[in-house]
Amino acid sequence: MKTAGILASALLATAGIYTALPFGAGLAESDNSSPIFGVRIPDGYRQWEVIAPSHEEGSFNELRVILGNGMAVKTSRDTTLPFPDGTTFAKLAWKRVPSNEFSGAFVPGQATTVQIMVKDSRRYASTGGWGFGRFIDGKPVDRAQHETCFACHEAYVKDHDYVFTRFAY
Amino acid sequence: MKTAGILASALLATAGIYTALPFGAGLAESDNSSPIFGVRIPDGYRQWEVIAPSHEEGSFNELRVILGNGMAVKTSRDTTLPFPDGTTFAKLAWKRVPSNEFSGAFVPGQATTVQIMVKDSRRYASTGGWGFGRFIDGKPVDRAQHETCFACHEAYVKDHDYVFTRFAY
Repeated sequence: MKTAGILASALLATAGIYTALPFGAGLAESDNSSPIFGVRIPDGYRQWEVIAPSHEEGSFNELRVILGNGMAVKTSRDTTLPFPDGTTFAKLAWKRVPSNEFSGAFVPGQATTVQIMVKDSRRYASTGGWGFGRFIDGKPVDRAQHETCFACHEAYVKDHDYVFTRFAY
Repeated sequence: MKTAGILASALLATAGIYTALPFGAGLAESDNSSPIFGVRIPDGYRQWEVIAPSHEEGSFNELRVILGNGMAVKTSRDTTLPFPDGTTFAKLAWKRVPSNEFSGAFVPGQATTVQIMVKDSRRYASTGGWGFGRFIDGKPVDRAQHETCFACHEAYVKDHDYVFTRFAY
């Protein structure tokens, strides 16, 4: 019974892995890179400098910090658009929950997503030069969600090289 | 009338400046270190790693990020209290304003304060081992405001070595 149980668990786990793979997925999904763009979570991103915090109301109800690599920080500070190739932003989001210790203060709860934007003007020429990746627990979300990234950035911040965040001085 | 008004404004402004100076202020104020504690804004603090963002409601209406030096980050990550001597936190605050570009999102507006906590268990033995500094435009605020720092940290987070912020994983 125990062996059968383990076997059944293994089969279910395997089935789960295959179910999670989007139809038409290529190699990208097998190595934790995003569909469409092949963007990965960069090593060491958690140590990057803060560009700015933000708060998203409504059903998101999130606190966020947007971090950047050296190019992202320098270009954001100097406001010298466009961002050079190699620029990478990392947006970290958590549920916004009340502090248990101080009334009126809100702090990060459960982590929700990590979102990455990478500039490569040739590779991503059809999306303003930017590749996108949206990750939950280190795994990329599905292709459908990645199809919405550029449309939104194009609609709202095309004139800021498709980047929402400004440096918080 | 106009000249009189300008003169009156100038006098009021001058009076305001003198009122803001704490009685008994020593050398501390002349070198941008905080009253009572002698804490300065550390070089390079803006590049420190994020411990967590936060949001303060009400009259503050602020978005904040709490950054830390290496000791602050490591001890916060590992939750190995107490924090060692040399631990330094920097809390950066901005007014929380609606994004001009995305409905429901809030971003940093005008910077308000930078607040520093430094652990030195001997120098600051009477305040739980912590020295405090609260700065506006790089200048420390008055003595009266600095007298409130420890009382609040002691009242709410004595059991967390007087530190509110937890590492946002």
